[in-house]
Amino acid sequence: MLKTFAFNFLLFSTLLRAHGGNNGIIDFPDVPGFKTLVCDLHIHTVFSDGSVWPNIRVMEAKREHIDVIATTEHLEYQPWKADIPHPDRNRSFEYAKHFAKNSDVMVINGSEITRGMPPGHANAIFITDANKLLVDDPMEAFKEARKQDAFIFWNHPYWIAQSPDAKVILSDMNLELINEGLLEGIEVVNDTTFSDHALQIALDFNLTILGTSDIHDLIDWQYKLPEGGHRPVTLVFATEKTKPALKRALKKGRTVVWYNDKLIGKSDHLQSLIASCIKVEASSYIKNSTVAHTKISNNSDAPFMLRNNSQYNFYNSTDFVTIPPHGSTILDIRIEEKKKSFTLEFEVLNAISAPATHPIIRLTVRPKY
Amino acid sequence: MLKTFAFNFLLFSTLLRAHGGNNGIIDFPDVPGFKTLVCDLHIHTVFSDGSVWPNIRVMEAKREHIDVIATTEHLEYQPWKADIPHPDRNRSFEYAKHFAKNSDVMVINGSEITRGMPPGHANAIFITDANKLLVDDPMEAFKEARKQDAFIFWNHPYWIAQSPDAKVILSDMNLELINEGLLEGIEVVNDTTFSDHALQIALDFNLTILGTSDIHDLIDWQYKLPEGGHRPVTLVFATEKTKPALKRALKKGRTVVWYNDKLIGKSDHLQSLIASCIKVEASSYIKNSTVAHTKISNNSDAPFMLRNNSQYNFYNSTDFVTIPPHGSTILDIRIEEKKKSFTLEFEVLNAISAPATHPIIRLTVRPKY
Amino acid sequence: MLKTFAFNFLLFSTLLRAHGGNNGIIDFPDVPGFKTLVCDLHIHTVFSDGSVWPNIRVMEAKREHIDVIATTEHLEYQPWKADIPHPDRNRSFEYAKHFAKNSDVMVINGSEITRGMPPGHANAIFITDANKLLVDDPMEAFKEARKQDAFIFWNHPYWIAQSPDAKVILSDMNLELINEGLLEGIEVVNDTTFSDHALQIALDFNLTILGTSDIHDLIDWQYKLPEGGHRPVTLVFATEKTKPALKRALKKGRTVVWYNDKLIGKSDHLQSLIASCIKVEASSYIKNSTVAHTKISNNSDAPFMLRNNSQYNFYNSTDFVTIPPHGSTILDIRIEEKKKSFTLEFEVLNAISAPATHPIIRLTVRPKY
Amino acid sequence: MLKTFAFNFLLFSTLLRAHGGNNGIIDFPDVPGFKTLVCDLHIHTVFSDGSVWPNIRVMEAKREHIDVIATTEHLEYQPWKADIPHPDRNRSFEYAKHFAKNSDVMVINGSEITRGMPPGHANAIFITDANKLLVDDPMEAFKEARKQDAFIFWNHPYWIAQSPDAKVILSDMNLELINEGLLEGIEVVNDTTFSDHALQIALDFNLTILGTSDIHDLIDWQYKLPEGGHRPVTLVFATEKTKPALKRALKKGRTVVWYNDKLIGKSDHLQSLIASCIKVEASSYIKNSTVAHTKISNNSDAPFMLRNNSQYNFYNSTDFVTIPPHGSTILDIRIEEKKKSFTLEFEVLNAISAPATHPIIRLTVRPKY
Repeated sequence: MLKTFAFNFLLFSTLLRAHGGNNGIIDFPDVPGFKTLVCDLHIHTVFSDGSVWPNIRVMEAKREHIDVIATTEHLEYQPWKADIPHPDRNRSFEYAKHFAKNSDVMVINGSEITRGMPPGHANAIFITDANKLLVDDPMEAFKEARKQDAFIFWNHPYWIAQSPDAKVILSDMNLELINEGLLEGIEVVNDTTFSDHALQIALDFNLTILGTSDIHDLIDWQYKLPEGGHRPVTLVFATEKTKPALKRALKKGRTVVWYNDKLIGKSDHLQSLIASCIKVEASSYIKNSTVAHTKISNNSDAPFMLRNNSQYNFYNSTDFVTIPPHGSTILDIRIEEKKKSFTLEFEVLNAISAPATHPIIRLTVRPKY
Repeated sequence: MLKTFAFNFLLFSTLLRAHGGNNGIIDFPDVPGFKTLVCDLHIHTVFSDGSVWPNIRVMEAKREHIDVIATTEHLEYQPWKADIPHPDRNRSFEYAKHFAKNSDVMVINGSEITRGMPPGHANAIFITDANKLLVDDPMEAFKEARKQDAFIFWNHPYWIAQSPDAKVILSDMNLELINEGLLEGIEVVNDTTFSDHALQIALDFNLTILGTSDIHDLIDWQYKLPEGGHRPVTLVFATEKTKPALKRALKKGRTVVWYNDKLIGKSDHLQSLIASCIKVEASSYIKNSTVAHTKISNNSDAPFMLRNNSQYNFYNSTDFVTIPPHGSTILDIRIEEKKKSFTLEFEVLNAISAPATHPIIRLTVRPKY
Repeated sequence: MLKTFAFNFLLFSTLLRAHGGNNGIIDFPDVPGFKTLVCDLHIHTVFSDGSVWPNIRVMEAKREHIDVIATTEHLEYQPWKADIPHPDRNRSFEYAKHFAKNSDVMVINGSEITRGMPPGHANAIFITDANKLLVDDPMEAFKEARKQDAFIFWNHPYWIAQSPDAKVILSDMNLELINEGLLEGIEVVNDTTFSDHALQIALDFNLTILGTSDIHDLIDWQYKLPEGGHRPVTLVFATEKTKPALKRALKKGRTVVWYNDKLIGKSDHLQSLIASCIKVEASSYIKNSTVAHTKISNNSDAPFMLRNNSQYNFYNSTDFVTIPPHGSTILDIRIEEKKKSFTLEFEVLNAISAPATHPIIRLTVRPKY
Repeated sequence: MLKTFAFNFLLFSTLLRAHGGNNGIIDFPDVPGFKTLVCDLHIHTVFSDGSVWPNIRVMEAKREHIDVIATTEHLEYQPWKADIPHPDRNRSFEYAKHFAKNSDVMVINGSEITRGMPPGHANAIFITDANKLLVDDPMEAFKEARKQDAFIFWNHPYWIAQSPDAKVILSDMNLELINEGLLEGIEVVNDTTFSDHALQIALDFNLTILGTSDIHDLIDWQYKLPEGGHRPVTLVFATEKTKPALKRALKKGRTVVWYNDKLIGKSDHLQSLIASCIKVEASSYIKNSTVAHTKISNNSDAPFMLRNNSQYNFYNSTDFVTIPPHGSTILDIRIEEKKKSFTLEFEVLNAISAPATHPIIRLTVRPKY
């Protein structure tokens, strides 16, 4: 039977929403000067070792309000080849593009260069023809990607299947790729994994920080969307939602990774994003007191976990303060003497800009008298 | 990256459960003399016009505790043929069987004979070789299925794409198929649709009553599992969970369809199932009164919707009584004089045994004094 | 400590909403010509045998958007008298009125005449001085209430503590009270109890139908508000929200009781209310078919449970149809030939106008072509 | 009507549980050598300025599994006196004790000495006769409490109604009370408020740390229990659940405050409690790797918020780790070389032992090979 319409036929269902209240939608604000694009640049379908036709990847993206997906089938690993022998390695992209037509989902053509260590796996995206990357010498594959003006990033360089202690192995070949601009970014998050070491290498070599789902089965199951989970994505700060602007932003390294309720990125981008999420909504001194009753709101999916570094403390909280996603928190701030304005300072514990390093944010409060 | 383990990485997730509290699991009790097998005998994958690899169909079934699925790809409709040109029409079954190994999911080989009206679409299941059904003359396809000792049923005979007023068109060819035992069952439920007329024909011609998902995309999305929905299935009452016993049960017509919180079936099977679901748990006269405080429990996913037909009425309810799925209801029953036992009678409104006909159940209550 | 402000200090809370999505608010639409006033005309505080100060009753009412409460302390039953010996029986009312100032809650002065059978318990509301009702002869109490122009109704006349088989005992005294206009209404619902017999007597003697909570402890606990429950209330159809208009409406019998997800009332008031709740939102023929895809909405807290009595049946449902509270249901209606308009007919199973009698509603559908 | 039984009459209700899954129950494990008693030692009823009869306070405690409540009516503030003029100030205790009979709730007799600053408000609990505390000179009230062998603690010494900048004002009189053992404890948490300064004073003067609800209206509303909130309580570590043992524990200062998802207490008690809550459940090296897949469980209501201080980092998390209440978290720990055992170290951010000071916990992991 062909589905011709859909309807809600549940009788007694309860609309159940998890903590962000967003039903699986990934929602972060724009930052000054840039649009925040929600990108998953590493996905698979039946055209390599994934389990779905490309339309499902597009439907998942629509449901989660993902702006950009990249089709990145394994070039060298094709377990369903007996059934899907098509020689053209752009088929996944072509189907996804077709299914995304007239939607808000932008689809990027890519491929996963899938090799042992070195150099390991890498994604080349914004390519024009995947077939040409299918060559014997890995270096040649990277060079072909460069010729196609791709953005190329290193996938899960800390993967325990290739590195038993989950350390990034910086081989000569990888260093050469980096030095020649053939590796411009690095996954610090892949699926459910994260690497402090990869983050350090991103900083040391000025690589773009990326987080991807590398999804093979279903997003809803893998990240427990109905229970409030989310897939890992890269938030990219681009001048506009176009492929050239996106590529430019990736090459400039304007990214923050959103992974498992945490934000990971270079300090300035993290600062800019968090400043766009958290606002002092209102403040006024409680009658006959010098305590400023202050509402701080959070316009994003991130549940901010803050440690107070201010000289002030709170009449209604210890120094550990949280602001729920798309919600707000009241802080009653103790000031010795009433002031027109003062500044709060917090360490953002669920954000990191380097291993064990958390951004410090400052919030100016101007209470009403 | 290859997934090597899984874990719950949600920090603040809330365990959200819908009305039955079963997280998508379909759960009905056995009935006297038979196991209740939860069967979805009509599904699609990328091997015809579906959107998933067969492993997803098996994983869905595992998650929902479905006992049996049948792979029923369209024989004549193969939109992904350019990419999946494999000539063997048993591939979907072989993959599904492989993925279901060592699990509780039983996979049946089937095929959907996909023709215009007459005869429309039909599923032949328990076949041994799908390829042999791919013949020009539709009658020959049915005969080949019979030769392979298939169980054959008519799919959505009321489909508006083939019958603009959603009536079942009983052509001569369909009558011939029925008369010759080449159509032994009939879908009264397909996906989100139901047909009173198909139910009447099932009764008139003594065909087995079936309900199927005919799933193409994802079960979770199509039936809103996280919000408490369920796919339509056929509950089959078999002597044991084996293919021969299942086939025998289907040929004997021992089925009830579970569709959209409703039960549809022949009167005796409905009675037997409902009697296995609903129990008088406990009853005792409220002190100094002739009112029997009575707990009635429901050991199934069905939210029973009852109209009181008894000579007694209730101290705590009107004549419309519901028993929640996997829950219970207290009824305080007004008896003129205390008795050792008495009988309640209800019409089960969310079950039907014929168009506009609901089963009547009787519950004997033996209150403690 | 004195509370001077409040705030939401929950960190990871989940906004949990029950089936109507209204967080404890009771919400029914107005009906043509009348405002629908949500009234609980039977409540207790510490001023008789209740467990709360009157401010809690007002706060409960505010939270649930109850329009009217009546303070109805037992005149003759004062278990806390050793601690609350105040001779003035209007204290509860005076406090409640004070706490309700500047709110939308209207408070009515009342008293519960609390006698054995006959005449049992009765509430006199709209009284001017409760003290004067405290007399020996029960008939005199009723006459004093009449002198004060009260509206007087019979409380739980089927109470098993006074009637072991939960039958209404119509004594000569009660008949006299009814005949002399000293009993104008009757509770068919009190707290968690209901009586078919009381409903029949309301109809036989043309008494106003009432449902009340008779709350002693806490509404939230007794009716499980966080899980989606509601207190029983009387919906009164008044020309405006004033005491005279309310009293007029009660004397005219313009009421429907909302009890345990059911509606109980005289046929015309039920019809009027249900017609204001249920609307055909939109309808259009599905392409190339005579099936009208039709959205029916429900603008109330009641989950309507309908049995189809129409000559038409449905492409997506059996004859048992539900419309969730503050939600909608899609019905795909099978018409033999396309018509400009046609009429559906349903029996409303969760509403009763007499024992075992359900209102019939008609909905005209005008599908788009 | 008198309630004689209760039942669940909700038809379509959903069991909604907030983050801890405990439906309002406060649940912490015992610690080595002591029972953990959940105590709310500051509550009000209509016998001073509260809004409920004492039975409601007992019912609330039962529902939340509170072990101990103390009735602490204001001696000097009696706004309902016109209606409740009873001269005996032990009435609230006597009623509460009566209602708590045959339950697990222990009721302590207490009184709130309610004065301006100095000395402010104080609770004397375990008193034998509240009436004798009702004297003019505040010092005499404390001395009388001492004579009755009370445990006496300072209430909300930072209350902005008495201290506009919410600082604790340590007057000579308060110092004298402390020095003479007439103030043995101090509220660092009262209702929704907290004070770093009071915590510092508790440490400086070795006072027992207390947190109380000071409830006047309803616990469910004030602390949003249905949404997962909890009242502030003092966890007292006593040798047994008896009044003498409880008093001894309070005098010894064996307490931790549970407030707004945070734990506040002296370092050793915090350590002892947290060590009883958090356990390494299981650990094993992931195949062919030196990464220890480790399950850490939390047997308490507290959602632990941890910062990794170990020399090891994680394959699946940044250094900010949370363990949900009554749940567990998987950490994949990166070890350079496989070891039989190693130690993790975390700072517990939602616990404080002094202003801006968090306990450090150590967890030994012994992975299976």
